[in-house]
Amino acid sequence: MFGICLVVAYDGTAYSGWQEQPNAKTVQGELQSAIATMAQESIRVRGASRTDAGVHALGQVAAFDVAKDIAPDSWRDGLNRYLPDDIAVQSATHCAVGYEPRFDSAGKHYRYLLMHAPARDPFLLRRAWQVRAQLDLDAMRAAANVFIGTHDFAAFRSADDERENTVRTIDRLEISHPVWDDARLIGIDVHGSAFMKQMVRIMAGTLVDVGLGRKKPNEMPALIQPGAQRGQAGPTAPAHGLTLVHVRLGRNS
Amino acid sequence: MFGICLVVAYDGTAYSGWQEQPNAKTVQGELQSAIATMAQESIRVRGASRTDAGVHALGQVAAFDVAKDIAPDSWRDGLNRYLPDDIAVQSATHCAVGYEPRFDSAGKHYRYLLMHAPARDPFLLRRAWQVRAQLDLDAMRAAANVFIGTHDFAAFRSADDERENTVRTIDRLEISHPVWDDARLIGIDVHGSAFMKQMVRIMAGTLVDVGLGRKKPNEMPALIQPGAQRGQAGPTAPAHGLTLVHVRLGRNS
Repeated sequence: MFGICLVVAYDGTAYSGWQEQPNAKTVQGELQSAIATMAQESIRVRGASRTDAGVHALGQVAAFDVAKDIAPDSWRDGLNRYLPDDIAVQSATHCAVGYEPRFDSAGKHYRYLLMHAPARDPFLLRRAWQVRAQLDLDAMRAAANVFIGTHDFAAFRSADDERENTVRTIDRLEISHPVWDDARLIGIDVHGSAFMKQMVRIMAGTLVDVGLGRKKPNEMPALIQPGAQRGQAGPTAPAHGLTLVHVRLGRNS
Repeated sequence: MFGICLVVAYDGTAYSGWQEQPNAKTVQGELQSAIATMAQESIRVRGASRTDAGVHALGQVAAFDVAKDIAPDSWRDGLNRYLPDDIAVQSATHCAVGYEPRFDSAGKHYRYLLMHAPARDPFLLRRAWQVRAQLDLDAMRAAANVFIGTHDFAAFRSADDERENTVRTIDRLEISHPVWDDARLIGIDVHGSAFMKQMVRIMAGTLVDVGLGRKKPNEMPALIQPGAQRGQAGPTAPAHGLTLVHVRLGRNS
């Protein structure tokens, strides 16, 4: 048996998220069928992050075990031939059989991309949330600083998420501007060890509310007090602005 | 009568180029139908550059005359509602009735984008030509320098182009690396006053041949001698790597 780890990029527009579901097109499902074609057996893939429907990735990590002995670069090139164009294996390496990237993830970097412009950009419309009104970046930065550290983020999770422990740690949270030398683009770069469902998108929606003056930075501390409710935070920013940039792995790979 | 000038961006993937054609989806055709919807009359649009099928634009310029008095910003916002997502008006201004952006163009900037990587990128696959082999950028730069200035570019035009005057001026020709901080991306930035059909793509294909060692920089001067033939230059690089970045207009607008 061989363990293979992949770094996978995808445009999530056409997919019902990472996780395999019956009767839905998912990234995990597409990967599993491409691998099955090469491996000539049915294979289950384990991902580092269960990205939501419409969310993108530059550096998702996926692992699987396979009987067939294929060199990592041949996995990369072969899978890219069988995968649809909007999913692409960036690299493949050997890793331990049974390796679980989700449990070995030591940190994840997500970027939420905003575009402040009066007109859409045909090349960015699937990737950035267009906000027409002017955003106060200083206020957004002041609000972002409140979230850094270990806090109860119960107000920043999808209403259907019922896990008990809602304490998470945000290691870095930066408002980057410009992004890629494009003055229209504003990035919300979030680094943390673990995130709840829709947490980054609710954080982005809340920071945009601050940028628009709908909320003040000094209202932020109340949102991370124990007992804070989902309704106190801002709206969930649309999925298409979010990209899983990188997964930092631990030492068990 | 009012003259309106637009700056238009488009992802050319789905279009048979700029120029209107019967039974084909073109950028000019889409713009004309969106304008007709707002103007409630049939309108002919005049473009600065007749981009080929599959070629993109960030800064195409288009002009039209219309009886209805609509403010420029309302043209921009209204057209963006009626246009398909892959075409977007970036700005609209008043200009002279009968203004011809093609004849007033004082210079155009095209960028040909190359991606040197072993795997495709789902976000760049429609915009950059993926070249897997290593490119010698120094050799490409030496070759590019030969083309700068006023020369006979007869070898750098589509075989079906039959115009008599094949002398053109290249003002700037730069190999940019990295592009957008992405180390995989190499840009061939071409600035000139006028270009023949497929000229930039044949230039890009020739420069890639030099980058791959198939041609030497010292073979370039022969390609711009009078009497040089299309067959002496390199292949026509694929359309999807080319973007019309900017049209510099003269003083008659």
